[in-house]
Amino acid sequence: MIGNFTYCNPTKLYFGKDALNGLKEELPKYGKNVLLVYGGGSIKRNGIYDRVIALLKECGKEIFEDGGVMPNPTIEKVKEGVERARKAKADLILAVGGGSVCDYAKAVSVSVHCGEDVWEKYFIRFEDVDCEIVPVGCVLTMVGTGSEMNGGSVITNPAQKLKIGHVFGENVYPKFSVLNPEFTYTVPKYQMVSGIYDIMSHILEQYFSGTDDNTSDYLSEGLLRSLIHSAKIAVRDPQNYEARSNIMWTATWALNTLIAKGKSEDWMVHMLGQAVGAHTDATHGMTLAAVSIPYYTYLLPYGTAKFARYAVNVWQVDPAGKTEMEVAREGLRNMEAWMREIGLVMDLTELGATREMLDGLVKSTLIMDGGYKVLDEKEIRAIFEASF
Amino acid sequence: MIGNFTYCNPTKLYFGKDALNGLKEELPKYGKNVLLVYGGGSIKRNGIYDRVIALLKECGKEIFEDGGVMPNPTIEKVKEGVERARKAKADLILAVGGGSVCDYAKAVSVSVHCGEDVWEKYFIRFEDVDCEIVPVGCVLTMVGTGSEMNGGSVITNPAQKLKIGHVFGENVYPKFSVLNPEFTYTVPKYQMVSGIYDIMSHILEQYFSGTDDNTSDYLSEGLLRSLIHSAKIAVRDPQNYEARSNIMWTATWALNTLIAKGKSEDWMVHMLGQAVGAHTDATHGMTLAAVSIPYYTYLLPYGTAKFARYAVNVWQVDPAGKTEMEVAREGLRNMEAWMREIGLVMDLTELGATREMLDGLVKSTLIMDGGYKVLDEKEIRAIFEASF
Repeated sequence: MIGNFTYCNPTKLYFGKDALNGLKEELPKYGKNVLLVYGGGSIKRNGIYDRVIALLKECGKEIFEDGGVMPNPTIEKVKEGVERARKAKADLILAVGGGSVCDYAKAVSVSVHCGEDVWEKYFIRFEDVDCEIVPVGCVLTMVGTGSEMNGGSVITNPAQKLKIGHVFGENVYPKFSVLNPEFTYTVPKYQMVSGIYDIMSHILEQYFSGTDDNTSDYLSEGLLRSLIHSAKIAVRDPQNYEARSNIMWTATWALNTLIAKGKSEDWMVHMLGQAVGAHTDATHGMTLAAVSIPYYTYLLPYGTAKFARYAVNVWQVDPAGKTEMEVAREGLRNMEAWMREIGLVMDLTELGATREMLDGLVKSTLIMDGGYKVLDEKEIRAIFEASF
Repeated sequence: MIGNFTYCNPTKLYFGKDALNGLKEELPKYGKNVLLVYGGGSIKRNGIYDRVIALLKECGKEIFEDGGVMPNPTIEKVKEGVERARKAKADLILAVGGGSVCDYAKAVSVSVHCGEDVWEKYFIRFEDVDCEIVPVGCVLTMVGTGSEMNGGSVITNPAQKLKIGHVFGENVYPKFSVLNPEFTYTVPKYQMVSGIYDIMSHILEQYFSGTDDNTSDYLSEGLLRSLIHSAKIAVRDPQNYEARSNIMWTATWALNTLIAKGKSEDWMVHMLGQAVGAHTDATHGMTLAAVSIPYYTYLLPYGTAKFARYAVNVWQVDPAGKTEMEVAREGLRNMEAWMREIGLVMDLTELGATREMLDGLVKSTLIMDGGYKVLDEKEIRAIFEASF
């Protein structure tokens, strides 16, 4: 573990079957006006909406609704939400949904009292928040992004074909998050496995960087092993509480800054995947899945030792009598087999992308420099081509 | 991961070679009067004292000193510290030292504005804090207890031959902690390896409980592997920054509530070790080391599956062709070999205990019920006997 860093994560988590009761402890800390943010309305079908409304009323809150947050929330929708929050004089934004809804809530949170163009300020110029924020709380109904315990907010600008994430500071982290694994039971399998791969990708983006000995990597290996194990169970038995709870907890710790400590971090898979998302509106985790094996296969010669360690410690590859590269390749093969087993999309065509989009995909891909190889545009194109 | 729980850890950590500069960000948040708490004076010999004093003065603080905190801080010393804090009208208690100093600072923190007998209230009746606290910050110079990021405070009452820990709530956690691995370079080897074993014991106390599949156990295995690896390096090369930094970070995460989530937790090794500490004033980690192998050997039949998992995932035991019990035993043998390799004390005699103390040791041992077997007094005596 080399280098200086700070760690602080003030989000309070309520976890388990009774987690929603945490609202009774948290809601009284805020003023009367609550902007209730949610997505396409599945929470109305599965009863979570009614339970949240009942608790808000029990706590004497005035409820202002802001539904219809899309899977890839747009900057236009954020601007609408800001208007609603201003009219409501919102004291709290309560996000009920998955990572998109939480991300959206944070984007609104930092924009209500901001006098500038928020797309330009936060997502193009990556500036810090210098205005008052509206506090955010989350009730999680879908698992994957880790948004419930971090400052991340990924927003899409369809006109510019850009999908960009900003990581805000600790004051923007959700003040509290409610994590009830049962709330994820009704998520369709496609979304569930997409979320599972999002979690895995978050861990790998942090794991595949650096060459020093770092406790963070050992924690990452633990999270990966737990995730791989529980994912197989959850796919067969979606209402397995134990598996669902492990996946939910793994998601939170996969992206709340802990396992990045002392690391440079890569995030190139996310840049490739987000380019696909900006051009196709495909489900986030699936875009990551489709580009991962081609990307990591390309990276093998540049980070062989780490890929071999990954193979042994995460995928139980027996290294006896094999070269480091053979061990590393066997690890990726095991990973790919697991990805296919749980039902991930391994081909960009299935996500609505076409080879005609290649120029645009390359252009939309931001290049990162924290992994084992800084890619150029030709390499990015080759990885996209291998993902069809 | 079964059961309901909450997680919140608001401590801000500054980590690395420049970590002490964190004081410049933190000190201005508090009033003028700082109670500077430290131990036997080693910080004066290694220069840390001078650097802290300079920063306190730079931030315009009035410094009130409270040195001489002993390795097993006593309730009498706590009462002295309370008087000093009251006279100083302390706005902040700055603990510079190891876990004993941090534990002591927290005990003073919750007692300054408490009108009752604090030994009775907190350590006998285990009552919550219902008075104002004086905030605590830490500069860590010795690694092991995790006190820098939790609410724990272990205090000894020599007259009653009791050494008891109370875990206070989040408001008592250190507001900030400074973790510079270089500050631990001058810690003598005996104290270093004692701290290393304290870390391992914290992890195992949480790991060896429950039979469900729990992400916490995977995180524990990651921490254990990192610790075992780095400990071997640090013993050979005490100024190896990488190893020292991994040990420091592992210590913090071994006991800041994370890896206990969803677990019942054991803590029986600590109860046995603390009884030895109360009778001999021996170094905490060494008391844990001396009783661990006898305790876990006795426990094998009651938690065989978990001990076998421990053997495979942490100690790289190859399970092929072996019974679960054989695998489990081989794991404990590997653990014992590692303990001897890094220089831990494996015999109570070396810690100043005698067989004449057996009655007293048994009487001083609190019995816990979260592990794989609730011990009776006869079993406790047998484990102590096997530790000679």
